[in-house]
Amino acid sequence: MAEPNTEMPEVLVLGRPTIFQFYDEQLSQKFRILKPWESSLPLDQFISTHAQSVQAVMCSPKGIGSQLSSSLLRLFPLLRLIVTTSAGVDHIDLAECRRRGISVASAATVFSEDVADFAVGLLIDVLRKISAADRFVKNGLWPVQGDFPLCSKVGSRKVGIVGLGSIGLKVAQRLEAFGCIISYISRKKKPVPYPFYTDVHELATRCDVLVICCASTDQTRHLIDEEVLLALGKEGIIINIARGDIIKEMELIQCLVQGKIAGAGLDVFKNEPNVPEELLSLDNVVLSQHVAFLTEESFRDLYELISGNLEAFFLNKPLLSPVLDD
Amino acid sequence: MAEPNTEMPEVLVLGRPTIFQFYDEQLSQKFRILKPWESSLPLDQFISTHAQSVQAVMCSPKGIGSQLSSSLLRLFPLLRLIVTTSAGVDHIDLAECRRRGISVASAATVFSEDVADFAVGLLIDVLRKISAADRFVKNGLWPVQGDFPLCSKVGSRKVGIVGLGSIGLKVAQRLEAFGCIISYISRKKKPVPYPFYTDVHELATRCDVLVICCASTDQTRHLIDEEVLLALGKEGIIINIARGDIIKEMELIQCLVQGKIAGAGLDVFKNEPNVPEELLSLDNVVLSQHVAFLTEESFRDLYELISGNLEAFFLNKPLLSPVLDD
Repeated sequence: MAEPNTEMPEVLVLGRPTIFQFYDEQLSQKFRILKPWESSLPLDQFISTHAQSVQAVMCSPKGIGSQLSSSLLRLFPLLRLIVTTSAGVDHIDLAECRRRGISVASAATVFSEDVADFAVGLLIDVLRKISAADRFVKNGLWPVQGDFPLCSKVGSRKVGIVGLGSIGLKVAQRLEAFGCIISYISRKKKPVPYPFYTDVHELATRCDVLVICCASTDQTRHLIDEEVLLALGKEGIIINIARGDIIKEMELIQCLVQGKIAGAGLDVFKNEPNVPEELLSLDNVVLSQHVAFLTEESFRDLYELISGNLEAFFLNKPLLSPVLDD
Repeated sequence: MAEPNTEMPEVLVLGRPTIFQFYDEQLSQKFRILKPWESSLPLDQFISTHAQSVQAVMCSPKGIGSQLSSSLLRLFPLLRLIVTTSAGVDHIDLAECRRRGISVASAATVFSEDVADFAVGLLIDVLRKISAADRFVKNGLWPVQGDFPLCSKVGSRKVGIVGLGSIGLKVAQRLEAFGCIISYISRKKKPVPYPFYTDVHELATRCDVLVICCASTDQTRHLIDEEVLLALGKEGIIINIARGDIIKEMELIQCLVQGKIAGAGLDVFKNEPNVPEELLSLDNVVLSQHVAFLTEESFRDLYELISGNLEAFFLNKPLLSPVLDD
């Protein structure tokens, strides 16, 4: 093992960013990466060992220590930069960062195409029962049970995009090619040809499918509740590739179990990695483990963006993907 | 049960068309449908009971008695029309029909959108491991095994369409919206902006993915063999929503098992409903039971087309979707 180069700029990592599964070596060649998970110290002691000197933190919304609250941030007197490996920044107290003059950089749109592809894949899967078919055939049921229920067509389905940002727009563009009819809600009206609504309940009333693409904020938390699901109706389908807490999970489960909506494709959950037991046995639900963003290509791009942001910071240059830049 | 109306035109059904699961009552109100599967007679006796009078046969490529060979057709001296509930007509001896002046009508493009949607769904599933993720989460593995392999991006993948008919064109149009790069082979060059190849081996060499969309004919049978698969290469993916016999199934299985290609999405097989045992345990393969065409919407359209063709025939009007019209 090479001697740690104390000349290299120091970066403390909080949470457990998936990028270290793939780009640990490359990042460690450029920066002195302080990894709590490789230390024998408990996290709080590891943090207090380095807190006085650390200027840059890399973080992810997953893993222990991933919530960058104001009390955690207070431990780092010299902190000037937080780089998160996620597009969302709901795990970072942005108000505190702004107050302290801490810059924040995110993964920006690096994952947008992959997440949009996955959302469309989940929707086709739920409508056309692909995972259920794969299970049926692999369990040897085809020669035994001949018949299979009819599925629903993708085309001409009325799809409401909840949050027409970078991901939502790409979902819309892909689904248009299938002949879906798109409308959306978003914080503001966008220069797109799709009907714009301001109320999610009204959007649900007019749609067969809702695809959740918005950030998790105080305004979007629990946005999708029983009332919205009932407005979507018995043929309704929910796709969520955003954040678990945007949906009232127990109310969604009840609607699915009681047949008040038709199905769901869920990549995110309230208490990851724990998925509510009731969902595991439902044939009209397709589940995945928060992997909508996880491709070789997006991780290569993420590595370049993360290390570019850190290099820019240490060279006093503008960040590549600032959320807050002071 | 209503008395069979002997005034209604008689239609003998061969094979076991799925449409009778859903539109039996409606068809039986318009025609005197002769169904071997509801008779206590063996099929050959059932046929000989009705063979002298039957002018119209409805058939499907699935089920016992589904092969309309010249020897079977010889049993029906007055046969003037065959309506198949499928887009493909490889189960009908067309040369014999032509010789005898028997008209043939098919499902034409009724299923094209649904089959294209399903093909795209299978490709996203194989690249992004959606069925595998669903299995992983539903088996409770997420909290136990944290990591999951990186997937491959859909966009910028080079996709070769094998057969740019109605289905192939719709697959191409959908995948373009994901940023895939499309090329194709077909019997003849089409007025499309995609590069055209005449040799499937050359197409495979230039592509990451082959989507099989062609009809099963003497020219396409076993078109995809080991040599083509090796040309596609280790990252290669095969999607087949056409017919099982277009691929040399054992050579495909060997390439999948030995990692000579990366994965497959298969809706059709050589000996349906039997799927080779080796495929059932592969995590990089998504399987379905010949359901790419199976939606409520396409079956409603199929019912209208089938009954429209039969009505036209008995009224001496032109068929709605003729393959052969005499």
